[in-house]
Amino acid sequence: MGREKILLAHGSGGKLSYELIKGFFLSAFENPALSELDDSARLDPVEGRLAFSTDSYTVKPLFFPGGDIGKLAIYGTVNDLAMAGASAKYISISFIIEEGFSLDTLRDIVDSITLAARQTGVKIVTGDTKVVEKGEADQLFINTTGIGYIRGGVDISGRNGQVGDLVLLSGTIGDHSTAVLSQREGFQFQTDLRSDCASLHGLVKEMLDASTKIHVLRDPTRGGLATVLWEVANASRVGIVIEEEKVKVREEVRGVCDLLGFDPYYLANEGKLVALVPQSEAEKVLEAMRENPLGREAAIIGRIVEENPGKILLKTGIGGHRLLEPLSGELLPRIC
Amino acid sequence: MGREKILLAHGSGGKLSYELIKGFFLSAFENPALSELDDSARLDPVEGRLAFSTDSYTVKPLFFPGGDIGKLAIYGTVNDLAMAGASAKYISISFIIEEGFSLDTLRDIVDSITLAARQTGVKIVTGDTKVVEKGEADQLFINTTGIGYIRGGVDISGRNGQVGDLVLLSGTIGDHSTAVLSQREGFQFQTDLRSDCASLHGLVKEMLDASTKIHVLRDPTRGGLATVLWEVANASRVGIVIEEEKVKVREEVRGVCDLLGFDPYYLANEGKLVALVPQSEAEKVLEAMRENPLGREAAIIGRIVEENPGKILLKTGIGGHRLLEPLSGELLPRIC
Repeated sequence: MGREKILLAHGSGGKLSYELIKGFFLSAFENPALSELDDSARLDPVEGRLAFSTDSYTVKPLFFPGGDIGKLAIYGTVNDLAMAGASAKYISISFIIEEGFSLDTLRDIVDSITLAARQTGVKIVTGDTKVVEKGEADQLFINTTGIGYIRGGVDISGRNGQVGDLVLLSGTIGDHSTAVLSQREGFQFQTDLRSDCASLHGLVKEMLDASTKIHVLRDPTRGGLATVLWEVANASRVGIVIEEEKVKVREEVRGVCDLLGFDPYYLANEGKLVALVPQSEAEKVLEAMRENPLGREAAIIGRIVEENPGKILLKTGIGGHRLLEPLSGELLPRIC
Repeated sequence: MGREKILLAHGSGGKLSYELIKGFFLSAFENPALSELDDSARLDPVEGRLAFSTDSYTVKPLFFPGGDIGKLAIYGTVNDLAMAGASAKYISISFIIEEGFSLDTLRDIVDSITLAARQTGVKIVTGDTKVVEKGEADQLFINTTGIGYIRGGVDISGRNGQVGDLVLLSGTIGDHSTAVLSQREGFQFQTDLRSDCASLHGLVKEMLDASTKIHVLRDPTRGGLATVLWEVANASRVGIVIEEEKVKVREEVRGVCDLLGFDPYYLANEGKLVALVPQSEAEKVLEAMRENPLGREAAIIGRIVEENPGKILLKTGIGGHRLLEPLSGELLPRIC
């Protein structure tokens, strides 16, 4: 490109837009549907039910230990599709870029997107680039929207929780939020904190290979585990009891929480999932989870009950309990 | 909601996000797939080939004569799908909102989105809301991504232009850019300028009813008619000759162009299309266009030639000609 900064003309739809697309995006994301460069990608027929999911990513800073906005944008949408029991197939990507943004940084992010797409087997088939004037956006926002195939015989929804189901959690909580926070201005601290940013598609595939009777899958991103469980309890009109001692929190994460007054149940995760599974299937599913690197620390953390529909009861180690409300307020904007 | 402004907590994924979605979006966009409120929408099987298209909308100001960002976001994506000969079926919508944005204004935009979706028969099945701190985005950005069915027997792509094809344009050019510009700070002028913002799905359907042999469809948005023709000429490796006197420009638009030194061939349109059609089909298609209110002023404006592949020759009224280059630079950022 020979230029170092994004100019307004890169978003004009004209010559520089064309050069950016041809020289930057097309070569990185290459596939036949994208290379037609039409207003729409044209895709081969898809059999069975589709899953469709969108997310805009505004994470700050753009790079954090364990990931960056590009990787997050691919994995995040692949994960949302996986939470319907779907295998991600096609992704659209749309950039809103602040004038003056570094082209080198954009290239690093595009490389990260390319790698993440390759690792998850998803094709980037269509896209869009807008450039806004300096000061009218903060560096870079990315939207990804994905289409996946829903595996046959699977019916997974937040509404499908049933009394008697066990609650499985794939690993520790709070890693993503604390890793991003550690890079924020005014907070910078040296730690081994690392985002758990990962694609859950393989883990979900192996869980479904073990049992197609999984009722609910959710990835506890914004709002954290507490909010996601609360949503499921409300959608399914059931109560949930969680055993606090079964929920794993890394030492470093607990340290940050103690220091800053955060509760790990409300922190975002980007490579974890919670599953509601009939009791008869739970051991099989748990075993499958533990065989996957992303589920090595998986555990049964609770169960679905008839009492207190819409409420989450956290049983503490010392025999007490507290109610987990959904997140109110916002401590950590732009965590994803 | 009882609150007047968007708070960071509306994007937290917690309680206020839930209230915003339930009380604001869900009631407006209501349909069964959306109301499951899962991470992904689950959609019924789709037969045949799919079209898939994404666009982020950053138009400034948010409201302009003839439209607003919400209407634009629906029609824009429906139109991109139509340009593949596809009928829009499902749309995702993702908001990036600046902290402090007026909830009343958001409601007006949501109403406009709802109406536009209803008019085009498209279902909003999944969405996302992010809130960024004051000053880190300019009011509101919207991404829409759409899935459409491609009509059987149709093969429309910018690569399919053939020597001998005629170039049809559905109406006047330059209306959208000049209408938006008329509302910009520093430019405000009183005119009858009005954006042509419209959904082209009905027009395309009627054109395809007349002939499924249409080779190319494009809506000349950013970059204008000149850039879109240049893209097609390059993708199809053909030359295009346009007769200037056949290209209609409203008096008021020409006035603004004369005053400010703009060339209407580079201005954005949001309710126009250009079609490349084999000569044998052109009259049928033109007739169908003229019967639709959005194509009443349709005309054959040029033809595809073998000479000068990748170039657009504009024949002027006085027997001269000039080359139409693609847009270079950017005169009007954030036009869509």
